[in-house]
Amino acid sequence: MVGVDFGTLSGRALVVRVGDGAEVGAAVHEYAHGVIDERLPGGGPELGPDWALQSPADWIDVLRTAVPEALAAAGVDPADVIGIGTDFTACTVMPVTADGTPLCEPYPDRPHAWPKLWKHHAAQRHADRINELAAERGEPWLARYGGKISSEWEWAKGLQVLTEDPATYAAAERWIEAADWIVWRLTGVETRNVCTAGYKGIHQDGAYPSKEFAAALDPGFADFTGKLGHDLAPLGGLAGRLTAEAARWTGLPEGIAVAVGNVDAHVTAAAADAVRPGQMVAIMGTSTCHVMPSDRLAEVPGMCGVVRDGIVPGLWGYEAGQSGVGDIFGWFVETSVPAGYARAAAERGMGVHEYLTSLAERQKVGEHGLVALDWHNGNRSVLVDHDLSGVIAGQTLATRPEDVYRALIEATAFGARVIVEAFEAAGVPVEEFVVAGGLLKNRFLMQVYADVLRRPLSAIGSEQGPALGSAIHAAVAAGAYPDITAAAAAMGSRVPAAFTPDRDRADAYDRLYAEYRRLHDHFADGGLLHRLRAIRNDAVRGDAIRNEASA
Amino acid sequence: MVGVDFGTLSGRALVVRVGDGAEVGAAVHEYAHGVIDERLPGGGPELGPDWALQSPADWIDVLRTAVPEALAAAGVDPADVIGIGTDFTACTVMPVTADGTPLCEPYPDRPHAWPKLWKHHAAQRHADRINELAAERGEPWLARYGGKISSEWEWAKGLQVLTEDPATYAAAERWIEAADWIVWRLTGVETRNVCTAGYKGIHQDGAYPSKEFAAALDPGFADFTGKLGHDLAPLGGLAGRLTAEAARWTGLPEGIAVAVGNVDAHVTAAAADAVRPGQMVAIMGTSTCHVMPSDRLAEVPGMCGVVRDGIVPGLWGYEAGQSGVGDIFGWFVETSVPAGYARAAAERGMGVHEYLTSLAERQKVGEHGLVALDWHNGNRSVLVDHDLSGVIAGQTLATRPEDVYRALIEATAFGARVIVEAFEAAGVPVEEFVVAGGLLKNRFLMQVYADVLRRPLSAIGSEQGPALGSAIHAAVAAGAYPDITAAAAAMGSRVPAAFTPDRDRADAYDRLYAEYRRLHDHFADGGLLHRLRAIRNDAVRGDAIRNEASA
Repeated sequence: MVGVDFGTLSGRALVVRVGDGAEVGAAVHEYAHGVIDERLPGGGPELGPDWALQSPADWIDVLRTAVPEALAAAGVDPADVIGIGTDFTACTVMPVTADGTPLCEPYPDRPHAWPKLWKHHAAQRHADRINELAAERGEPWLARYGGKISSEWEWAKGLQVLTEDPATYAAAERWIEAADWIVWRLTGVETRNVCTAGYKGIHQDGAYPSKEFAAALDPGFADFTGKLGHDLAPLGGLAGRLTAEAARWTGLPEGIAVAVGNVDAHVTAAAADAVRPGQMVAIMGTSTCHVMPSDRLAEVPGMCGVVRDGIVPGLWGYEAGQSGVGDIFGWFVETSVPAGYARAAAERGMGVHEYLTSLAERQKVGEHGLVALDWHNGNRSVLVDHDLSGVIAGQTLATRPEDVYRALIEATAFGARVIVEAFEAAGVPVEEFVVAGGLLKNRFLMQVYADVLRRPLSAIGSEQGPALGSAIHAAVAAGAYPDITAAAAAMGSRVPAAFTPDRDRADAYDRLYAEYRRLHDHFADGGLLHRLRAIRNDAVRGDAIRNEASA
Repeated sequence: MVGVDFGTLSGRALVVRVGDGAEVGAAVHEYAHGVIDERLPGGGPELGPDWALQSPADWIDVLRTAVPEALAAAGVDPADVIGIGTDFTACTVMPVTADGTPLCEPYPDRPHAWPKLWKHHAAQRHADRINELAAERGEPWLARYGGKISSEWEWAKGLQVLTEDPATYAAAERWIEAADWIVWRLTGVETRNVCTAGYKGIHQDGAYPSKEFAAALDPGFADFTGKLGHDLAPLGGLAGRLTAEAARWTGLPEGIAVAVGNVDAHVTAAAADAVRPGQMVAIMGTSTCHVMPSDRLAEVPGMCGVVRDGIVPGLWGYEAGQSGVGDIFGWFVETSVPAGYARAAAERGMGVHEYLTSLAERQKVGEHGLVALDWHNGNRSVLVDHDLSGVIAGQTLATRPEDVYRALIEATAFGARVIVEAFEAAGVPVEEFVVAGGLLKNRFLMQVYADVLRRPLSAIGSEQGPALGSAIHAAVAAGAYPDITAAAAAMGSRVPAAFTPDRDRADAYDRLYAEYRRLHDHFADGGLLHRLRAIRNDAVRGDAIRNEASA
């Protein structure tokens, strides 16, 4: 079984044994173009400040190089492989022709013809317009997204194309997630997966938003759902069979099963064998994504979305997120740690993160006297506000870098607790908190999360969660298991209660968390932070600065 | 004329021409014991965390070394010197016998027998008790100190001695400011200057707080004012004549005029020729002290004190302060600037402060998107709360060190504006803002202050403000001028409008200042910041940490 994980900077292929999920070979391919956020590969003017594109050729290169390398590393006979599954970042979405040709092939000079990566944030005003109109019209789907859809998603990005480049919009016969496009290239057949359609395409209760709604956004947008396609394929389903061309790229046998496309975070739940109701999987890296199946439908304030069958068929799939986690620690280490610390870390053969952690973990809870808001990259859940920013309170002339580092770690743990509490307050119980992702290796950070959440944390058994999850989906698609739950139980794994809370520390964190909540609630309306953002934007744009203080 | 400035780490002697204030020679002597804040010079147990003592022998050494060196550097015949004046940090206060012997000479092992430096902060609970009782009893003097007396002052420190070491308290026949003690050693005569008696001794309307008040604090404290002495000497007055012993120390002629003692900040007003009503002198260094004469008496919220004749005879003298200014910038550079910046600064032959300033000054107002509260060392005016701490809001993953550095500079300028506005709102006009002190050399910082305050800043003409001010007072004491105002006009100087505001920047700062005020007012009650401090203190003390969040 082969799983392929398409990430932000690289793609990873993993060869997995069907019987027990053993990982027998892996390979990574870095994208030649990486994230395209300055200029198009062919040159031309600078892209806007919040743009982020990718090249489809890079993804095909993953199939051509990483898959054969992983097979070679595994030392298995390709003829023994019975299926391939894929997962992708989302919402990464692109305009293509009716036969699946990316528009950036015929139109390489048009920025809007290129795939828009998930972190393309230049469609905010279009998202604002969609939210405003949906609220006005009382669109029933809005509550399924915590009351706000994101500028990252299919509709906002599509509306941006229509508005800024109508010709490209018109040429886009299909508007498709990269998750589905790669499956199209593997099978020769267009499919649309339930997951991205629901979370990123606003497909709810069997339908996309109405043609009337789209037309009210812009008359030229009335045909938008026509570009999306209506038949959705279930997760773990068989999308089709590997084409001869794709077989040549990958070295895999023509005709093997290809699984329906999926999203990196969502397939990770299968890799952690955490696809039962109430199992919340937190994929913790530069940011954190939380996914959780549940048998109950509720409107959880500030969640990213709830989609029927969105993680596993038969259950509601919830998604929430923290927009800055590892990114915040990385920013701090890069911008705020003096030379003496870098030297001390090097002398001990440690990285700076590791050294700061070693200093921070000696402290008692609250000893640094700080509390911070983890909004340096905005707040996804529960406030759904990209224009928020970070706050730190309590600094004195005795405050040291390790104090701030620890306070930032704690801030993200408090942010996670706000999310868990929002689910539980809405009547959606979180039975188990399962951690996956790169931050799992920081044991101190994990202990802080266990203490702050006052609950044991389970840890995913694999370091390659998404690729393993894709392989699990491929096993289901190939018929090796009856469903995702059974496949996950056999092939996925987690260590239950890998980190358990200490009661005294948990009590101490309750005091700090109460302060975090007060700070959170005070700044949540965005008043001061939004005004600071507006002042910044005015200054950067060089607009005449209005005197609002005296108003 | 000789002026001697006794600072926190060193003493400085300056030889000045009487006719025009020309500075003809100077010398500095570093205190051998510096600040005694870990152990007494003879060893013994560790001092408490907020303790800060000094050694009187260090001060005498300044007279022995710096004065003769300054005379030698000036190349003047000591016989031409007609007077000496001194200024001191305050409140630096000490127990002595009836003949002026510091108690640390007979009792070198008793911590409470040593002089308590101004920044000894271990008497906070005694200050709290004094404030509480004064408020209860409606003591009329309390309003003269903005509603709160400080733990740094004579009463709180005295009450600490009584409480913690009654034997030393009993042996202290006199409780005297170092400012007056050094004059005692120069003249052989005990005097008490109006300035420290008023600002630090709670002497108002001709009297100290009543014996009943002192007794209500502690029956054993009833005799406290008896240790202070009631006859006060005016500033610029003749304290006495130089003794033979002091003449031997200094190389100056026996019998020359010795001026009444004074405080470093207050003498600086004379050096800047800024002793008329409404001339606010800001002495900007690690912290900032504001002094201003006025013909009006008002209760300005949060000022440090208003004292009749406290800066110049015949006027009310106001004092306010910012407890962290240069200290905050220093803390930031030491703890929060990465190696790359230190390297870049070194490559350019700059200090890190200078390099950060060079980056920060290129920005437009508000471009960093930040606002900070400058409370890292508490807030002296207008909140009078040492338990506050710093806050910064608006950080993103794009925030750089120069952004924070600029925001901290601006925060201190906003803090200064709050003080100026408090004076003006109370009906005490600030006619001119005059800057002295070490931060004057940072021209960018000065420009920020001019823009934020929306007014021109004058700059003191001397780099040795306190020592020059002391020499000016000595000139008055020696009869060379009829009063301080006349002497300051002849010997002191300032550059009017050395920095003038830019209207566009001032308008832009009004927007940011409005956000600072909102943040200021939100955190001013101390709720969250005090709770963080309490959590910290509990953690450091290792007390059982109570769970207050669920209460």
